[in-house]
Amino acid sequence: MDTFTSHRRVRLGRREKPAPLDLSHHYSAVTKRRMPSKIKEAYKFFQIPGILNMAGGLPNADFFPFDTLEAQAAKPERWTPSPNHPGETATSSTSSSDSAAATHIVVPKAADESDPSKKIDVTTVLQYGLAAGYPPLLSWVRQFTRENLQQDTPYKGGPDVVLTCGSTDGFSKTLDLLVDQWTEGVNDITDRPGLLCEPFVYTNILNQAQPHGVQVVTVKSNASGMAVKGPGGLEDVLANWDPSKGKRPHLMYTVTLGHNPTGIVLSVERKKEIYAVCSKYDVIIVEDEPYWYLQFPSAAVEEAKSRGLPPPTASTTPKSARSSGYPFLDSLTPSFLSLDTDGRVIRLDTFSKTVAPGCRLGWITAQPALVERFERINESTTQQPSGFVQGLISELVLGSNSSGSNTPNQRARSAFALLRSPRERAAFTGWDTSGWVRWLEGLRGTYERRVVRMCRTLDAGATLITTAPAPLSSRSDPDSEWAPLAVTKTPLYTFRWPRGGMFVWLRLHLETHPLWQAACPSSPQSPPLVLDGPALSAALMVWLTTKPFLVLVATGSMFSANDEVRQEDGWRYQRICFAAEEEGNVDLAAERFVEGVRRFWEVTDVEVVRKLLGELGPSGEVEALEEGVSSLGWYMGC
Amino acid sequence: MDTFTSHRRVRLGRREKPAPLDLSHHYSAVTKRRMPSKIKEAYKFFQIPGILNMAGGLPNADFFPFDTLEAQAAKPERWTPSPNHPGETATSSTSSSDSAAATHIVVPKAADESDPSKKIDVTTVLQYGLAAGYPPLLSWVRQFTRENLQQDTPYKGGPDVVLTCGSTDGFSKTLDLLVDQWTEGVNDITDRPGLLCEPFVYTNILNQAQPHGVQVVTVKSNASGMAVKGPGGLEDVLANWDPSKGKRPHLMYTVTLGHNPTGIVLSVERKKEIYAVCSKYDVIIVEDEPYWYLQFPSAAVEEAKSRGLPPPTASTTPKSARSSGYPFLDSLTPSFLSLDTDGRVIRLDTFSKTVAPGCRLGWITAQPALVERFERINESTTQQPSGFVQGLISELVLGSNSSGSNTPNQRARSAFALLRSPRERAAFTGWDTSGWVRWLEGLRGTYERRVVRMCRTLDAGATLITTAPAPLSSRSDPDSEWAPLAVTKTPLYTFRWPRGGMFVWLRLHLETHPLWQAACPSSPQSPPLVLDGPALSAALMVWLTTKPFLVLVATGSMFSANDEVRQEDGWRYQRICFAAEEEGNVDLAAERFVEGVRRFWEVTDVEVVRKLLGELGPSGEVEALEEGVSSLGWYMGC
Repeated sequence: MDTFTSHRRVRLGRREKPAPLDLSHHYSAVTKRRMPSKIKEAYKFFQIPGILNMAGGLPNADFFPFDTLEAQAAKPERWTPSPNHPGETATSSTSSSDSAAATHIVVPKAADESDPSKKIDVTTVLQYGLAAGYPPLLSWVRQFTRENLQQDTPYKGGPDVVLTCGSTDGFSKTLDLLVDQWTEGVNDITDRPGLLCEPFVYTNILNQAQPHGVQVVTVKSNASGMAVKGPGGLEDVLANWDPSKGKRPHLMYTVTLGHNPTGIVLSVERKKEIYAVCSKYDVIIVEDEPYWYLQFPSAAVEEAKSRGLPPPTASTTPKSARSSGYPFLDSLTPSFLSLDTDGRVIRLDTFSKTVAPGCRLGWITAQPALVERFERINESTTQQPSGFVQGLISELVLGSNSSGSNTPNQRARSAFALLRSPRERAAFTGWDTSGWVRWLEGLRGTYERRVVRMCRTLDAGATLITTAPAPLSSRSDPDSEWAPLAVTKTPLYTFRWPRGGMFVWLRLHLETHPLWQAACPSSPQSPPLVLDGPALSAALMVWLTTKPFLVLVATGSMFSANDEVRQEDGWRYQRICFAAEEEGNVDLAAERFVEGVRRFWEVTDVEVVRKLLGELGPSGEVEALEEGVSSLGWYMGC
Repeated sequence: MDTFTSHRRVRLGRREKPAPLDLSHHYSAVTKRRMPSKIKEAYKFFQIPGILNMAGGLPNADFFPFDTLEAQAAKPERWTPSPNHPGETATSSTSSSDSAAATHIVVPKAADESDPSKKIDVTTVLQYGLAAGYPPLLSWVRQFTRENLQQDTPYKGGPDVVLTCGSTDGFSKTLDLLVDQWTEGVNDITDRPGLLCEPFVYTNILNQAQPHGVQVVTVKSNASGMAVKGPGGLEDVLANWDPSKGKRPHLMYTVTLGHNPTGIVLSVERKKEIYAVCSKYDVIIVEDEPYWYLQFPSAAVEEAKSRGLPPPTASTTPKSARSSGYPFLDSLTPSFLSLDTDGRVIRLDTFSKTVAPGCRLGWITAQPALVERFERINESTTQQPSGFVQGLISELVLGSNSSGSNTPNQRARSAFALLRSPRERAAFTGWDTSGWVRWLEGLRGTYERRVVRMCRTLDAGATLITTAPAPLSSRSDPDSEWAPLAVTKTPLYTFRWPRGGMFVWLRLHLETHPLWQAACPSSPQSPPLVLDGPALSAALMVWLTTKPFLVLVATGSMFSANDEVRQEDGWRYQRICFAAEEEGNVDLAAERFVEGVRRFWEVTDVEVVRKLLGELGPSGEVEALEEGVSSLGWYMGC
């Protein structure tokens, strides 16, 4: 197995890039049965000049009730960036003086443009389209991915891209591509597919995989991410796999840049180690990166400052072989794709966090053979993302070189046409890649400032300091009226400032709570209960939602990959999101949380806790709440 | 088996509606393993007044770069309706004098509305949302479906709805719901799932089903649709099922209102017969109705008139128990849902033909238990349709009761705000259901007029009339210089005017072609060839794309459910779409087609045909073309 790829490499010279591996042995039976497209053989007939189409069953664009698609869109400078490296000034310091400044964008009914990769109009974008995506948007995403984002992919020809309806759709299609459904009692246990992931994971991935019969296999992780060596590490799990428990996993799911929920940014060094093991054991890596642009270079420095510790040694971001053309992008930690000599990385990107979750638009980057299979899957499922979002995002990013060819009547009626002079209109040519990067820099800046503010407040409230008269035995003058005070520091929670993403991951120290392991006697309404970790954790979560705290947090059990993790560790954690609230509430939310936790440690009446647990439902089951919040978290973008 | 539902009915009184059957025995293993949602148990926490959300991992709406979504939208009166019954005048005769008249619609950043089913704004529609759909749109679709479209569903409580990303997505999720993947050599033959359909079928359904291992089982059909009695009819197929060929099919796919490709509108009488057999054999009916509003009441009358035949006896549309409130809707043939006492009908609707294919928006109507499962599938795949289309369609149909609460600065910058006075703005309150129905009436009218024009032209060219001197033996006066002419009528094709949908389905009479069964000797480039039906059919298709005809049609083999149908009958048919071309080309396309067919019958040189077949690709394989055009047809809305 460890020679899986060695032959190929030996044959290749040092500078020649290898072709990506043929991974078709991993395809699901369904994927294998999907036919290749013969579209090219037929396309010539549709392209005959002057041909009239009586073949396709599609409505003529005249019958679409939308004559234009329009929007007020932000200028890329709306938000102020933060520096790419601690101590530097932001590369793009030209922030908008007016954050409300907006541009009116219009997708016209029909654009005067013959190149499909430049033509953005209602007639094409609201018509049936290509399964890979709307040509202008697909071209831009491909170019951005290959030339700016992941320009160093080391296999021959580099990766291709295919649009998705967001990364949930992307992962669903990845399961379709690679996983044969497995059912106990029907299929052989040795065929059971497995999915490698961290003990704490974006749970909806599990909700997607488990119904297919996939076995979730956790890999031990530490503060730097997934462990490779040692007991429970990746190599151990794969090398000592017991086939009687299922097929050795051939699929890994991970978020490397701002991990959800732990906030870790996986270093390139760790990525190299993980990749080598995946290559050895023929594991496909699914790298889900909704937060890739949210990396916080100031986090380590500000964390030390906030805690009065010496400044950390500066970490150097590995330089790419060549620049992306954007210092911001160059400063980010490279993706697994940059190490992907085999072509075994499937990266999921989404517009959910960069534009809006409601886009339901994203893309998959992978070796071309896999992308071709994803296109076939698209054809049989979603066909393509909605033309409404493809059109408006295309227009936002690429602008329009054409004034369109609506009828004069329609043009005259367009609010836009009346408002803007032709010169003003022509002036909007889209954000372009530079504007897109500038927008991301602004978002990163805004989130990074939130992290600093919120984490300082959390640091300040992490320890309960209580004072009490010192015990007699320790007093120097036992008869003095002025008893000295003994200061007790009780750690309520500890955490690492997030290096990326949208979350602070707090470890609670419930074992310091006065009611730790207290017995709740039975009452006429309730059975007896011992206030163990899971009970206190759930009670704290409910406590925080009560007045005057009124904050809702997610508990670690919601992100536990399996019951073992949930029971052993899940209750120890809470995940706090600093992205969802409006700007004015960020400090308030952190303050309320800190106050709520502090006051929870003052609770000494077991009945108070029992009452809180009663809020979880008639049966008082923590599980129900967790699953409920987890389901709701889905809608709330967990 | 025939007593599957009888007990339940016996127990029920005559007027009491039965509850829908529990169909969970049909769920796939994956569907069974999907967890129920516990969202309601957690929702109360998100609803606590003043609660700050640190739980959900979602960006605040302030970070969306879209401040509004806007569009120029048609008024519902843009197109002129046609009468609901032959000879009547159209119910809505108030057509727009200016077909370009449009309304500017705006989805504001934030609407001042607390009722989620009325609130339409960027803040909610571009955020993560509910798996069932955006509340205002979902409410409207539900109301329209239950109160106007299918108000008579006979089971207790009636059906529910769930939004999809169009009907391809809807059928994909139906397979996910009901079909266990089956692989030869892995699974038992007796477990192989089957799908009942007509011999000619919307082929992409097969492209979706077959990779899952589904066996396609055709049911004999005639000019009125799927046959129930007799050899090869539905009852025969199910009653005499051979289990050694797979599981008896538990799923049927059909288009009943404007069948693709045959243009048939299935009568309620036939539907009752089919439904009874499906109920007896526990078959779930998937009714895909993209063309339900395109039923052509004038077709039979105009067909008779065009052919000089006596007018047909008027068929009476069965009246619903109560009116939908719209004469247009009342005049349409009811869906299988109206007969669905068991709750075994899954109806697929789409906005692809009523608004635009690029919407990627539709809905499923089914009994609530199935709808709940579809919601769970949505959560794990597409989550929800794009907010861009949900927002703009909501705004189009429902309008906005609120002026929004953008900042004054943003409002001032809105082109819309500058253009319209508050009074004008308030005047647009959405199309509403009446406008929606009026829009559909207009589309039906436009398509129906196309049918009449195109079919008259096709009728005129259906027969090749040739004259030649009559043979001597038949002359009354053999010595006369004036030889009488013998008129020969060669039928080129026959067809029934479509009763609905977007297609004319022509039966070619290739057996009357001069080269029928002619032998093409081998040449240095080509193997020998007999000009049989498939060869002549393919050659005609290519011939029509050459100058001066320049029309592209779809061949019947593209819609053949299996190889047997393709070889025996597929080549006999061509499908002509009258929807795709712009208005000015409709007559031209029909004329070119007629001329092309006529001239094809003048081809007497086998080498001409061989050359045409050579256009199909290096190997000259008809199959490749068919699959290619079929793939392309996918993009072209086949």
